Amino acid sequence: MGIKTSKEYLASLEMQKPEIFIGGEKVHNVVKSKYFKTPLEEMCKFYDWASDPEKEKDFVFWSPEIDEKVSFWTHLRRTPEDVRKLITTIKMNNARHFCSMCMITGLNVLWAVTYDIDQARGTRYHENLKGFFRELQRKDLRYCMGVMDPKGDRSLPPSRQTDPDLYLRVVDKNKDGIIVNGAKVHTSDAPVTHFIFTSPSGLLREEDKDYAVSFAAPIDAKGLKFITRPAPGPLEPREMESPVSSRIGFVESISVFDHVFIPWERVFMCGEWEFTDNFMRYFSPYVRICKGACTSARTDIVAGAAALIADYNGAGRAGHIRSKLTDMMISSEIGWGCAIGAVANSVMHPSGIPIPDVSISNAGLYHSRLRFIEFLGTLQEIAGGIVTTMPGEAEYKNEETRKYIDKYLKGRSDVPTEDRLRLLYLIQDMTASRFGGYLAASAICAGGTPETNRVEVARNYDLRRMVNNVKELCSIKK
Amino acid sequence: MGIKTSKEYLASLEMQKPEIFIGGEKVHNVVKSKYFKTPLEEMCKFYDWASDPEKEKDFVFWSPEIDEKVSFWTHLRRTPEDVRKLITTIKMNNARHFCSMCMITGLNVLWAVTYDIDQARGTRYHENLKGFFRELQRKDLRYCMGVMDPKGDRSLPPSRQTDPDLYLRVVDKNKDGIIVNGAKVHTSDAPVTHFIFTSPSGLLREEDKDYAVSFAAPIDAKGLKFITRPAPGPLEPREMESPVSSRIGFVESISVFDHVFIPWERVFMCGEWEFTDNFMRYFSPYVRICKGACTSARTDIVAGAAALIADYNGAGRAGHIRSKLTDMMISSEIGWGCAIGAVANSVMHPSGIPIPDVSISNAGLYHSRLRFIEFLGTLQEIAGGIVTTMPGEAEYKNEETRKYIDKYLKGRSDVPTEDRLRLLYLIQDMTASRFGGYLAASAICAGGTPETNRVEVARNYDLRRMVNNVKELCSIKK
Amino acid sequence: MGIKTSKEYLASLEMQKPEIFIGGEKVHNVVKSKYFKTPLEEMCKFYDWASDPEKEKDFVFWSPEIDEKVSFWTHLRRTPEDVRKLITTIKMNNARHFCSMCMITGLNVLWAVTYDIDQARGTRYHENLKGFFRELQRKDLRYCMGVMDPKGDRSLPPSRQTDPDLYLRVVDKNKDGIIVNGAKVHTSDAPVTHFIFTSPSGLLREEDKDYAVSFAAPIDAKGLKFITRPAPGPLEPREMESPVSSRIGFVESISVFDHVFIPWERVFMCGEWEFTDNFMRYFSPYVRICKGACTSARTDIVAGAAALIADYNGAGRAGHIRSKLTDMMISSEIGWGCAIGAVANSVMHPSGIPIPDVSISNAGLYHSRLRFIEFLGTLQEIAGGIVTTMPGEAEYKNEETRKYIDKYLKGRSDVPTEDRLRLLYLIQDMTASRFGGYLAASAICAGGTPETNRVEVARNYDLRRMVNNVKELCSIKK
Amino acid sequence: MGIKTSKEYLASLEMQKPEIFIGGEKVHNVVKSKYFKTPLEEMCKFYDWASDPEKEKDFVFWSPEIDEKVSFWTHLRRTPEDVRKLITTIKMNNARHFCSMCMITGLNVLWAVTYDIDQARGTRYHENLKGFFRELQRKDLRYCMGVMDPKGDRSLPPSRQTDPDLYLRVVDKNKDGIIVNGAKVHTSDAPVTHFIFTSPSGLLREEDKDYAVSFAAPIDAKGLKFITRPAPGPLEPREMESPVSSRIGFVESISVFDHVFIPWERVFMCGEWEFTDNFMRYFSPYVRICKGACTSARTDIVAGAAALIADYNGAGRAGHIRSKLTDMMISSEIGWGCAIGAVANSVMHPSGIPIPDVSISNAGLYHSRLRFIEFLGTLQEIAGGIVTTMPGEAEYKNEETRKYIDKYLKGRSDVPTEDRLRLLYLIQDMTASRFGGYLAASAICAGGTPETNRVEVARNYDLRRMVNNVKELCSIKK
Repeated sequence: MGIKTSKEYLASLEMQKPEIFIGGEKVHNVVKSKYFKTPLEEMCKFYDWASDPEKEKDFVFWSPEIDEKVSFWTHLRRTPEDVRKLITTIKMNNARHFCSMCMITGLNVLWAVTYDIDQARGTRYHENLKGFFRELQRKDLRYCMGVMDPKGDRSLPPSRQTDPDLYLRVVDKNKDGIIVNGAKVHTSDAPVTHFIFTSPSGLLREEDKDYAVSFAAPIDAKGLKFITRPAPGPLEPREMESPVSSRIGFVESISVFDHVFIPWERVFMCGEWEFTDNFMRYFSPYVRICKGACTSARTDIVAGAAALIADYNGAGRAGHIRSKLTDMMISSEIGWGCAIGAVANSVMHPSGIPIPDVSISNAGLYHSRLRFIEFLGTLQEIAGGIVTTMPGEAEYKNEETRKYIDKYLKGRSDVPTEDRLRLLYLIQDMTASRFGGYLAASAICAGGTPETNRVEVARNYDLRRMVNNVKELCSIKK
Repeated sequence: MGIKTSKEYLASLEMQKPEIFIGGEKVHNVVKSKYFKTPLEEMCKFYDWASDPEKEKDFVFWSPEIDEKVSFWTHLRRTPEDVRKLITTIKMNNARHFCSMCMITGLNVLWAVTYDIDQARGTRYHENLKGFFRELQRKDLRYCMGVMDPKGDRSLPPSRQTDPDLYLRVVDKNKDGIIVNGAKVHTSDAPVTHFIFTSPSGLLREEDKDYAVSFAAPIDAKGLKFITRPAPGPLEPREMESPVSSRIGFVESISVFDHVFIPWERVFMCGEWEFTDNFMRYFSPYVRICKGACTSARTDIVAGAAALIADYNGAGRAGHIRSKLTDMMISSEIGWGCAIGAVANSVMHPSGIPIPDVSISNAGLYHSRLRFIEFLGTLQEIAGGIVTTMPGEAEYKNEETRKYIDKYLKGRSDVPTEDRLRLLYLIQDMTASRFGGYLAASAICAGGTPETNRVEVARNYDLRRMVNNVKELCSIKK
Repeated sequence: MGIKTSKEYLASLEMQKPEIFIGGEKVHNVVKSKYFKTPLEEMCKFYDWASDPEKEKDFVFWSPEIDEKVSFWTHLRRTPEDVRKLITTIKMNNARHFCSMCMITGLNVLWAVTYDIDQARGTRYHENLKGFFRELQRKDLRYCMGVMDPKGDRSLPPSRQTDPDLYLRVVDKNKDGIIVNGAKVHTSDAPVTHFIFTSPSGLLREEDKDYAVSFAAPIDAKGLKFITRPAPGPLEPREMESPVSSRIGFVESISVFDHVFIPWERVFMCGEWEFTDNFMRYFSPYVRICKGACTSARTDIVAGAAALIADYNGAGRAGHIRSKLTDMMISSEIGWGCAIGAVANSVMHPSGIPIPDVSISNAGLYHSRLRFIEFLGTLQEIAGGIVTTMPGEAEYKNEETRKYIDKYLKGRSDVPTEDRLRLLYLIQDMTASRFGGYLAASAICAGGTPETNRVEVARNYDLRRMVNNVKELCSIKK
Repeated sequence: MGIKTSKEYLASLEMQKPEIFIGGEKVHNVVKSKYFKTPLEEMCKFYDWASDPEKEKDFVFWSPEIDEKVSFWTHLRRTPEDVRKLITTIKMNNARHFCSMCMITGLNVLWAVTYDIDQARGTRYHENLKGFFRELQRKDLRYCMGVMDPKGDRSLPPSRQTDPDLYLRVVDKNKDGIIVNGAKVHTSDAPVTHFIFTSPSGLLREEDKDYAVSFAAPIDAKGLKFITRPAPGPLEPREMESPVSSRIGFVESISVFDHVFIPWERVFMCGEWEFTDNFMRYFSPYVRICKGACTSARTDIVAGAAALIADYNGAGRAGHIRSKLTDMMISSEIGWGCAIGAVANSVMHPSGIPIPDVSISNAGLYHSRLRFIEFLGTLQEIAGGIVTTMPGEAEYKNEETRKYIDKYLKGRSDVPTEDRLRLLYLIQDMTASRFGGYLAASAICAGGTPETNRVEVARNYDLRRMVNNVKELCSIKK
């Protein structure tokens, strides 16, 4: 059927029995737990949009693999134009909804890597991956990405750690499959998906070959445990005081694989450490263009909020405020322009998908993610100290104090104080709350870090050619 | 007696009956309310330190005004060396305790302004101020500063606002005193002090002369109401998960003056709008040097946390991390160096106190406060995404999950996971919580904003002299 | 014939008799003057490349207008792919040759504007332009752009200047043509071209309609005078000490139109002030993508020179140097990525040419041009103070001193001192000479300024949509 | 006599017979050579000021060493107040004259180091130094500093270089003195002084002890040769077109010591490699405070020029220009504030001189020197592209073209075009000439580099204390 309703999705989750630890409790049924309201609501949106005639054009696709309509989540992007459409959707959608679940590009990345391995080694990982994705497409299932390993001592490679499990690894294999042990961190929303889809988290050397493993496991696989952290917003929605975090937010988990068995048909890499280099070269640009589009869109929200509060404060025409808004616009356009530029500079991979430009995508994201952090401060400056000194919603609902708040938190006389207050709460939610912290972390640490971006630009920029040009310019012979 | 114990302080608060609105409730006794634990604990520290032989040298002073020992809070700084000692205490103290209550420099500022007015107008505000301070000193009382007005439409001066009360103003006077109406915002910790001490919030023109008012009022004055917001940390201390915000944090209030009567002997300015210019020139450098020292000290905390987590992660020797730490150090030294430099460049005011250099103090703070925001992101980058994806304390206390956390959140093998976790929680507390948002806001919006710093540098820098130098350099005659 | 040889080009210049003032002299024949060697050599390169089998693919095109091969200079770019090829050539070529004469995009800009005017006003400017360009193509002629007006008092529009000629304007018209008076500045290389091709320099209002004029004039038109400044390099080539500026550099002129007559068929705009808005919207992105590609390419040269001197100094592996090189790479990629991205986001104009994205192109250039200035300093830092303290070529040629220079200016022992010295001279040429100053000026003031970029991003970014998104996020109704 | 006239100074130079190679020639008499006009003029200024009643207060001092008046150059600064006066003079003087010869602090640095060595080793270097300085004071002589070694391969220490002479070293000693071989670079103005005064250029290890040498040599010592580069300005003054570089500029030399003999009484260090650490800790803050004051003063010139040209262009009130000027002011104040702050934080050395704060002085300079480079670009932006496209002085002096220049290079109608042109030439001189390149180099590479500043902040900042504070904050035990 390819496209499920959100009701069917929730029903499918209730069929699963994952082991989830959250708030000191053990939970199996996420649909009934208080801790998962926000992430479930978000996941449901994507199902709902696929049935919404206005949104369908961005969220439903035709799959040649199963000859049916499929969702945004499970669609393979085969051309630069497809990828461009993907990031355009992220850019437009995130300026309202903050996140478009860009882990979905994991499919494209593994598509290319499994193809490379099969070509070189005669394995059948690419077929396995196709099989897995056909299943996802047909049943319209969701997955979380398990990429990042806990990593222990960062100065040591996986196999030299005191505890060999600090990177997820294969501890045994037999004719039916493999046994893996270890954990993945930052597995956003794992408990509200159907599968965890893993990959290595970096370049590996031969001595680390047991760590070169990629597979998919149902989230209620035996031995799989999620130590989960609630979404950063309030457990009970407070639409006024926490307008965003009441509705938007991931649960995050340490996903522990305590000797989990994976059948061969769900294995996509097992020991081929030499291909982690390819993996990084495909993974990097896909993640960066998505994150670049996302960071641009979130910068747009910050710019919108800053412009609106300045306007409400009667300061909209001040030169320094126009200038600060322009800084935000420039950074947003750089993030977005480099994402678009990286896609325009794609090269086609023999497996039939495009690989965007690594340097451009990393450079643009590097810039815009760092400026995003600064803009959180700029937004506070434009809004004023009141963002963290204003009274809570309880005082606004108390009649005795509401009149004073209405009187004294007034901005421009033609703007209702309540509107200004709602906006100030939004700004608080974005810059001075657990959710705001998550937003900052997501700018800095999700989709690689600024430092990773630097490393990848340095690795992919053709410095040798530039040096040779200079030698010619000053007539140096060799 | 000059120096009170914290017990006497708490007793003195219980004698007051202020009107405080918080959490939808009305509270009179702050000592008994759950909302004031953290701020009371902090205020008590300062009383305790005055009796602590180790701390005494920084927190007890001799007052020629009353010929007794007095506290850090109520002491008048009379020489550049005194001021330098003050900011040295702030710098050293804030790297551990985050805040040293620098609103105490309000005394120095008003000391000079009231002197100026009296000299020019024959008023007796300076004597009033001395009287008030002798009382504070003798009884070792505390005050909050009420500086910032709500301001309404920022494009209009006070007297042109649709609602004339959007800046605090004198609405009536008689032989005994004045009646004021309006409000002050950002009156940090007001409910746990004894007085609110007010001043205008900016330059005023003649038409705004009713707004040129400064006075002190006991916090339970009739008509004075505090619409208060809890400190940003948890109401119940969680020492592990919220190590800082469990112990440190202000309550913030809109302090409403609903037709409050102020007797003349507590009035320090009433209508002398021409002196708001002097006020700004004295207020600005005092606030900036304190905030500069404070920002430097908080940057030190960020640098310390970044260095320690890098070390725990086994990444302490990575070049890019050393470089990021150096950026923090440089910014800290600039903030601190300019504060010290501004004091060294003080000019003596005829009232007997020094006025530090306006331009230098504003320039240094401008730089270091903006970089502080960036460093909150840098700290997250160095610590890693785990800061906002790690499990909560409840999971660490659950035996079923603790073993996995101990295993998988391990950093360097010789560092206990619990230590690393405690540090990660600290970093979360500082960068991804309501308290973290407050810290950012405090860097950006407390003690003026970056934009204010720019305005004041531009106003005080001797551009004309530089232009004349240039004319001479290129032999331009006039 | 469409493609001329450089010999034919020089011959054609000798047929012209322009009035050129340079070095206190009056010159008519540029081919014979000592002042034009460098610019002529550069112009010849482009002719030569069109006959060079290896370069031809980038420098020769097929023109449907005249059904012949035409040169890089006179070709109309009709598709995003054409424009992308153009900037790719600039990017590749400028990393060796510094400049690719991007004024050639003037054709595309006027192509679209004249079309718009004709459609709205029934004029025949577009046909005039086609006619002019067919002539350029057939004879393979060159033009300089006359865009920037002297501007006088920047606070006043053209018609309010004390001297009405401070912007070029129409002072008379008759049935045969128009008379123009005024001047254009920054008309790079005018004396070595065949035509000066003008356009307004900014938005005009109705009162300024006499200033809304675009036309082409042969450079020896009666009344046209060039007050010209030599190229920044030495008049006699010094290949060792001035390796770049001995070969590369524009002459710059104030091009004075002292009542010059222009026949109607060479007029492309005359009074249609309302279309200066369109002009700016087409001009801006074309100039920015070229300048973005150019700045990226020049940053590549800086990066190459920095990497090579670090290597020669034995410092190539130092972490801080790798980091500085990475900064250069990132900035280069941002400039380039946004140029590519702006082209990928083009919209087609009804006249049949693409208009690249204004915001993206301005944002990318803004960033990379400002960083370019910083990198000139970084290059000096990496090379060391020796760049401006080393002896001149004369000392290297003096046997008595050469031995000491060879001994003491040695870097890594396996690199000949002469190579290191040549490279240091290159760095001096780029960062500490008149040419270096020109390079900086070209980064900052050519193709608009950083401030212009800001204005255009601000004008084209869809802030209203972002504000509306934010209103929805916090449930603000209207 | 302590204070010489400039005439006596010139006469004293003519008594010397140094070996100088410049412009392919060999020169002995600098007073008669065309190459030394500018540096001689500058040196004379300092002599003249000492006899100028208006300047005397800053340029004449009382020396207890010889009980006579001495000059700015030869005075020992003994208190923080002395040092503060020194940098105040630099700050005030350099905003008009660009340079105040801050190499003179070499005396203070060696004063402390020689004292340390003597105390520890029983040597008599300190007495030697006193003797040398008494001579300088009595005869009012000048010296250049020879600090920087050529350094060869930067990845190797002195003793591991292929050629052991790439750092200046002792090759022999006997009872009368030592023989040194090698060279010093960046020895500004050496040929117009009386002595070259040397020191090691960095930290040395035991294996490098032959390189731990400090001494003074007359500039016509046998074996001493100067391979000299002319000052960056024109050889014939062009007051209009090169207003600064016609009057200001150093000659720079590679100062070659080809087996030069130094008698023991002029030796101040010989083999005591352990004290290079102290040397760096004293040298660093002295150089940094001088360079910080200097960079601040030069930033003031840039700000003055930018403000004036904006005014002449009619753009003085534009918001973005005010903002750019404010950036310059802030950076100037940071450089200056940290210099003052570093002096205020001095510790007294047992030899009787103050040592300013290393971290603060390095941090402030780091910031302001990097921004200075940016401001050279900003100044060009504010002035406009005309800086590098305007005609030369020859065209302004040609009557045929002067009228057009007067007409078309007009700015605001009430400002004579000639004044605007003079200012534009100044800006060209400062940003787009060999002198401009020297100015940039001097900001980046003189007085250490930005990278050196980073290293020294990192080395001197008390990171351990900050880490311990953080441990206490999160209750980490050890």
